[in-house]
Amino acid sequence: MYRSHTCGELRMGDVNKEVALSGWVQTVRKFGAITFVDLRDRYGITQLLFGESLQNELDATPLGREFVLQAKGKVNERSNKNVNIPTGEIEIVVSEFKILNKSAVPPFTIQDDTDGGDDLRMKYRYLDLRRNAVKKNLELRYAVGRSTRNYLHENNFMDIETPFLIKSTPEGARDFVVPSRMNPGQFYALPQSPQTFKQLLMVSGYDRYYQIVKCFRDEDLRADRQPEFTQIDCEMSFVEQEDILNMFEGLVKRIFKDVKNINYTEKVERMSWEEAMWQFGNDKPDIRFGMKICNLKFPAHTFPTKESLSSLISGVDFKVFDEAETVVAIAVPGCSEYTRKQTDEITEWVKRPQIGMKGLVTIKCNADGTFKSSVDKFYTEEKLKAIASATNAQAGDLILILSGAEERTRKAISELRLEMGKRLGFRKEDEFRLLWVMDFPLFEFALEDQDGGGAGRWVARHHPFTSPKPDHIHIMINNNPKVEDLDKYLEHPYAGIKANAYDMVLNGNEIGGGSIRIFQRELQEKMFAALGMDAAEQQHKFGFLLGAFEYGAPPHGGLAFGFDRLCAILGGSESIRDFIAFPKNNSGRDVMLDAPSTIDAKQFDELQIKLDLKPPTPKGE
Amino acid sequence: MYRSHTCGELRMGDVNKEVALSGWVQTVRKFGAITFVDLRDRYGITQLLFGESLQNELDATPLGREFVLQAKGKVNERSNKNVNIPTGEIEIVVSEFKILNKSAVPPFTIQDDTDGGDDLRMKYRYLDLRRNAVKKNLELRYAVGRSTRNYLHENNFMDIETPFLIKSTPEGARDFVVPSRMNPGQFYALPQSPQTFKQLLMVSGYDRYYQIVKCFRDEDLRADRQPEFTQIDCEMSFVEQEDILNMFEGLVKRIFKDVKNINYTEKVERMSWEEAMWQFGNDKPDIRFGMKICNLKFPAHTFPTKESLSSLISGVDFKVFDEAETVVAIAVPGCSEYTRKQTDEITEWVKRPQIGMKGLVTIKCNADGTFKSSVDKFYTEEKLKAIASATNAQAGDLILILSGAEERTRKAISELRLEMGKRLGFRKEDEFRLLWVMDFPLFEFALEDQDGGGAGRWVARHHPFTSPKPDHIHIMINNNPKVEDLDKYLEHPYAGIKANAYDMVLNGNEIGGGSIRIFQRELQEKMFAALGMDAAEQQHKFGFLLGAFEYGAPPHGGLAFGFDRLCAILGGSESIRDFIAFPKNNSGRDVMLDAPSTIDAKQFDELQIKLDLKPPTPKGE
Repeated sequence: MYRSHTCGELRMGDVNKEVALSGWVQTVRKFGAITFVDLRDRYGITQLLFGESLQNELDATPLGREFVLQAKGKVNERSNKNVNIPTGEIEIVVSEFKILNKSAVPPFTIQDDTDGGDDLRMKYRYLDLRRNAVKKNLELRYAVGRSTRNYLHENNFMDIETPFLIKSTPEGARDFVVPSRMNPGQFYALPQSPQTFKQLLMVSGYDRYYQIVKCFRDEDLRADRQPEFTQIDCEMSFVEQEDILNMFEGLVKRIFKDVKNINYTEKVERMSWEEAMWQFGNDKPDIRFGMKICNLKFPAHTFPTKESLSSLISGVDFKVFDEAETVVAIAVPGCSEYTRKQTDEITEWVKRPQIGMKGLVTIKCNADGTFKSSVDKFYTEEKLKAIASATNAQAGDLILILSGAEERTRKAISELRLEMGKRLGFRKEDEFRLLWVMDFPLFEFALEDQDGGGAGRWVARHHPFTSPKPDHIHIMINNNPKVEDLDKYLEHPYAGIKANAYDMVLNGNEIGGGSIRIFQRELQEKMFAALGMDAAEQQHKFGFLLGAFEYGAPPHGGLAFGFDRLCAILGGSESIRDFIAFPKNNSGRDVMLDAPSTIDAKQFDELQIKLDLKPPTPKGE
Repeated sequence: MYRSHTCGELRMGDVNKEVALSGWVQTVRKFGAITFVDLRDRYGITQLLFGESLQNELDATPLGREFVLQAKGKVNERSNKNVNIPTGEIEIVVSEFKILNKSAVPPFTIQDDTDGGDDLRMKYRYLDLRRNAVKKNLELRYAVGRSTRNYLHENNFMDIETPFLIKSTPEGARDFVVPSRMNPGQFYALPQSPQTFKQLLMVSGYDRYYQIVKCFRDEDLRADRQPEFTQIDCEMSFVEQEDILNMFEGLVKRIFKDVKNINYTEKVERMSWEEAMWQFGNDKPDIRFGMKICNLKFPAHTFPTKESLSSLISGVDFKVFDEAETVVAIAVPGCSEYTRKQTDEITEWVKRPQIGMKGLVTIKCNADGTFKSSVDKFYTEEKLKAIASATNAQAGDLILILSGAEERTRKAISELRLEMGKRLGFRKEDEFRLLWVMDFPLFEFALEDQDGGGAGRWVARHHPFTSPKPDHIHIMINNNPKVEDLDKYLEHPYAGIKANAYDMVLNGNEIGGGSIRIFQRELQEKMFAALGMDAAEQQHKFGFLLGAFEYGAPPHGGLAFGFDRLCAILGGSESIRDFIAFPKNNSGRDVMLDAPSTIDAKQFDELQIKLDLKPPTPKGE
């Protein structure tokens, strides 16, 4: 028996007990003839006191940081109590000890504020994982998983494992593939998600399925993407959208309660995709704060139901606005007294390449009711007042206006809004606001070739299994998907088809998304055809699913949460990597393992493949 | 809303409620002007009554097997109750119905006793999964997983996910590999188990880890092996073997209770590997019945501590026994009156190629105390009596004796014991007997080359991270592993080293196994060296683990259960495939998906690999 208790367990009530602890040496402090050691394990830290009689032994076998130590002794009340830790009222007066294993000096300190850089900590991940900050993340992750499983269990969901060695059907993202030795020349693929399998399970009658499951996408990694990631994957039969929204609001609220002790009793807000784009400039608005976009000017075809405000800014010969496709404004509360230096800095911020604006127009809504603008020479006080009124600005606010091409400008105002919200402390880490974004367009139109599927074609915004809104099905069935005039694709009936799809947004992050699925073979075939798949390709890639739909497929739908991201947000971090035990870097490498790596000639031989390396592309070409 | 209740839910207390059900049409029975439909979902079957007023509508849109149907109506007490199903006292008098989806006629019946053959059911797995028998298996699987998670949670274990894209370090079994597009010429491997990761987690201080996790082995598939399979993978720090045995006996007992409602209060038996081989002829004895082996003759070096009984059978010039390396017997209870035909049939059974014996000697222990043997002309009554006494045979028993080369004969007597146990009804499906088999040899000696690692070398019986018994460590450290005389490898000190390893056996099946691990760098290096790995290879393959052992690795150990097999045995089946939602066939193919399959030229191009197909080997060469 290596220990009778953990290092986080002993309290005043245990005084005088004979105990054995095992753990890691956090610190060694020598005071004359006595030595204090903080012994650490997963559960906490307990102070050990080595008295005078043990000093010779300590001198002979000195303890170092991260040594693994077993100590036996009696629990004692501390004279100098540490109220910051649960075990801080007691210490162990050591009677005997044993060094279970030595440790070299770690390449960085095992502290919350470590001196180790990212690369070093990734290489020695097993040491980084000892740090309390990282441990708390993994504990939170476990708690989220546990809470999820409990809630879904109580709601009759079954965890059913789906296969990892499946068929390659690249749609959008690239598959990782696995050569099959037993079937030379053929490959498995790793699943990008269990999408088709969970739909087959619905066909099989398992009406409430879930899985917390690894998925794989071979994409060029942007910051905070991982080639393997984890989903909470769910599907239900005999449901409409409303049933799904209720069920999974319930899940997230349960997680809030179990993991953060937050009673999220508010109704979860809902917003159409169009309203999200209109009011916030993106499809995952952070609604912890307002500062909604005022659309002073916009292309008529993108928001056909909205009224134009362009008369507010036109007719004064201000070319920047006159020539812009889009003019959008936000009213930043309480910032009317920003100095020139401050507004210049914001102007520089929007001109950064990541934002890409040419400039910024400001209107100060002074406390005394007057206005001061960077474009005073074009706009009268009255005009400025009208614009301020349109943006819902109050006296004391600062109006920021961006103009330019629709998509870029809308993205920029969205970023600017988030940035100002952050600067003003509106994005509180401990405030959580959930939102459903709904009614996405079913299709996007790829004017340029994105993935070798050709240019000028419809692509599925969500995935090809998403159902149109019930009253849009006939539009899909009764129209030819072909777009004759690429410039006018927005006028094609398919551009207006909305999907029975929904994303769950938490504090400006998409944490989950899903849809009601197509469950009729004919509609699924129409969808595949609209995406440019002929009958042979449909059969080759998805014959099993089309086949399954012939034998009594029930209406069904579901969603998947990004488990890594959900944990990161709940943990108050932007980085999913901090919430994964063994993450990969931005080149998809595990630097600790040094993987991927070369394989043996024997492996190539058995798999009947060989390398076909191309000369590296010179930089700049 | 598609339904107010499930098809397994309504009872007499619900009579007169207006309800809506959705499900699949199991049967349609027309009686004059009324029609009965059994509607099925995951939860049960409910009878629907379509009265006269709906017959026209039914005639216009006839219902077929496996149609998806929504029915609304009132719950009614049945006149003709079915006591065999929980909903059998009520029916729904349908007021309106809607066909949600049609179904083609399924290729086999969705019944417990289906008319579908294996291949057909695999191809239409989504229909096979509808069968109650298969559903019960997946429900049992989910219950075992749930019980496991609850027990481990209550015991402070944390579920921590380990990566799937790792480094190829083939040891024994072949890795599945994954070409890395971002790192051309390099490959990931899929994990054969999370072994090294869970050990790293112990180094990191996560002292109780578990995961229910997919593992991958690219082996030639024998019956009932799958290229991807699931483990309950566990590891603990600061533990000795006894701690682990207690913890995981507790897990299995908890599963028995939760899943089978069995109170397994007996102490779990323990047996050394040597005793298992000696008494049962294999390392996973079925101890639901006795019939232990009597070792009449055996090579002195395999069981050096055992006393020879060969005087009982020698000296009568019976060449078969005199020339055999091994002579082993079992006493089959109550079979002394077997006819010649019956003993001949057993003789044929042991002569089958799978068993491979040349013949069988029988001794009938007659009820009157006399003996009758197939080798009467060699053995006197007195000799037979002595043999019978050695086998612990009682009057009325039938002694079966096999002879030949040690390994094959011992395997054969083990098989014969199991076969006779089965025939006599000693292997009861509803009786569960657990056993720990312990003290395995640390090494096996590969006289022939098995996997390209060369002939005449030590291989790890369990895996290279298994610790020797504490008092055998010095044997390992202080001896050169090199075997000079291959014929005398059993005399090398390494042959006697026992491992701190243990297997859990349930009813003659290994359901789990594990070990106390090496946690000292020096001992781990010695182990790798003993297995023929030089320092460079050690560093290339396991540098991260050796590195981790330098920074305070705690004593640790663990085990892994074969989740698929555990479920199968608890479900009373020999086939793991029945307990996997989407299994592969013996060629590693998913016949439903038709995977693996070819991939696109673009995928080869991006991965920078090409095929290197060899001409198929002609049969018979």
